[in-house]
Amino acid sequence: MGSPKPGHVRRLVEDEMLERIRRTLGGGIEPHGLRDDAAVVGVPGGGSLVVSIDSVVAGIHVDLTLCSPADVGWKALMGAVSDLAAMGARPVGALVALCVPAATGEGELTLGVMEGVAEASRQSGCAVVGGDLSAGGVLTVVVTVMGTLDGGRAVERAGALAGDAVFITGPCGGSAAGLRVLRERHETGRDETGQDRSLAAAYRRPEARLAEGEVARLAGAHAMIDISDGLALDLHRLADASGVGFALDTIPVAEGATLEEALGGGEDYELIVAIAPREVDDYVMRCTSAGLRPPLQIGVIRADTGSRYLGGEDLGRLGWQHAVG
Amino acid sequence: MGSPKPGHVRRLVEDEMLERIRRTLGGGIEPHGLRDDAAVVGVPGGGSLVVSIDSVVAGIHVDLTLCSPADVGWKALMGAVSDLAAMGARPVGALVALCVPAATGEGELTLGVMEGVAEASRQSGCAVVGGDLSAGGVLTVVVTVMGTLDGGRAVERAGALAGDAVFITGPCGGSAAGLRVLRERHETGRDETGQDRSLAAAYRRPEARLAEGEVARLAGAHAMIDISDGLALDLHRLADASGVGFALDTIPVAEGATLEEALGGGEDYELIVAIAPREVDDYVMRCTSAGLRPPLQIGVIRADTGSRYLGGEDLGRLGWQHAVG
Repeated sequence: MGSPKPGHVRRLVEDEMLERIRRTLGGGIEPHGLRDDAAVVGVPGGGSLVVSIDSVVAGIHVDLTLCSPADVGWKALMGAVSDLAAMGARPVGALVALCVPAATGEGELTLGVMEGVAEASRQSGCAVVGGDLSAGGVLTVVVTVMGTLDGGRAVERAGALAGDAVFITGPCGGSAAGLRVLRERHETGRDETGQDRSLAAAYRRPEARLAEGEVARLAGAHAMIDISDGLALDLHRLADASGVGFALDTIPVAEGATLEEALGGGEDYELIVAIAPREVDDYVMRCTSAGLRPPLQIGVIRADTGSRYLGGEDLGRLGWQHAVG
Repeated sequence: MGSPKPGHVRRLVEDEMLERIRRTLGGGIEPHGLRDDAAVVGVPGGGSLVVSIDSVVAGIHVDLTLCSPADVGWKALMGAVSDLAAMGARPVGALVALCVPAATGEGELTLGVMEGVAEASRQSGCAVVGGDLSAGGVLTVVVTVMGTLDGGRAVERAGALAGDAVFITGPCGGSAAGLRVLRERHETGRDETGQDRSLAAAYRRPEARLAEGEVARLAGAHAMIDISDGLALDLHRLADASGVGFALDTIPVAEGATLEEALGGGEDYELIVAIAPREVDDYVMRCTSAGLRPPLQIGVIRADTGSRYLGGEDLGRLGWQHAVG
């Protein structure tokens, strides 16, 4: 949803702060817990769980003048579930912490948010198993999700190899374009078109690509990430974690969105998949057999970590990072 | 930390709101997930995890003029870990979501909070396996904890039977008294006494009773709850869930605290344990063998759910509930 606000450039952005937090936590932290979208936790007595925690804060991640409380609840749960999709995991359950402003009307707000959480829970098959309710300064929804790999191995951000094909599970920029259209209509009061409606839905009710993630895992994907902060930034993160570069030749742009929105928009929750060339046919066939949209190859992984190209030009780290510091 | 603010009495308080949320979520929710301190999740491939989510919001649960950022981090992690203790579980890992105000200095605030999280993580043996960092309106720390029962069954709030002995793992009111003393000293600037220091530590650095919870579980406790919102209120909750009453004859008050603070203070994290009379000797012996403080019997469970007495007088639902509605 756009790059950091001007004036915040001197602050540490999220990736750098996470590095400092890792150092503070020292030996107590599972090494990939703050690097990947989710962490894998071994369960005494057998099995393992993929777990992740994700926050949605009103005024930071969502604009309550453009979204209903139910939309906020939906986005919070789906955003967390998307972290499971990015590891190739299937949802087992969610925990929801809701902080609502201490002011008149927070009962309605609470129930509205939880209605959206419940809708996203049914849509994704991720049951809410527990929660916490608190007064708070700003509407904040924090969701922890748990998932299973059914005995398989998680697909991490790290693992992409030189020569891998880079796929994306669908066109990008719809969510960012939806936000733009909602703002335009909010400001100008113009009538809503059919395209407005579908873009607004992409922003308000995004869907995690759970089936797509699981198929990619079963097809042997080397590395994967979901597009939560922007295709460009999230692909850079995958390349950073894997110690590789990339060369893209095409970017699928959602109808009604711009190329900039597709590259830097975020919250599309499409998956970026790096997979060996010899597995590509099998991967695409598995997607078709599962009734999924065909994935689109957008480029290849390069060995040189400094090579980060789109159409022969350097691709910047466009995308959404929280300015913190 | 005191009863709901005057003027909020017409609002729904937490217990009622949770009931409405349960109805909103309908069939999608594990029945005990929003009732007990923690939920038990079966893990595909074997085993199960006890999971819980808990929030600490500056200005609501903690006063940043009386606590350091590290204290806030400690309290957030320990408060969540205490939910594991209350089920008799052993920690497996935690996820931490941190929302910090978007203002100058939040980098220091973030690292300060995480330092306290790390200290509480080492103290409780609960490793941080993942996290999320976000800008937000008010400092908010949400912690999800996961624990194991090593193949045993969780001790829930429900399960207390008429005739059970009611134990408490230690004296109460220290945390509330610590808050009172910190406020007094903040307002008057008076010198700190030795007792002030130990009460302030009870407020700033409470400890979850993990070993005590596990011993009570292994001794066959029927029901258990941790004192997060006040001995009286949390005992009422245990009695509500179990469909029973109680008759207390004594309340152990922490040195320097008042009876009111012991009954309504909250955040002591001592455990209330209901256990069959025939198991009491074994339970007390197990505590001694484990090097724990001897638990104190404070009363008995009564069959009549309407009987809720302390020393023959009705015991009110004193304690901390968030006014929401």
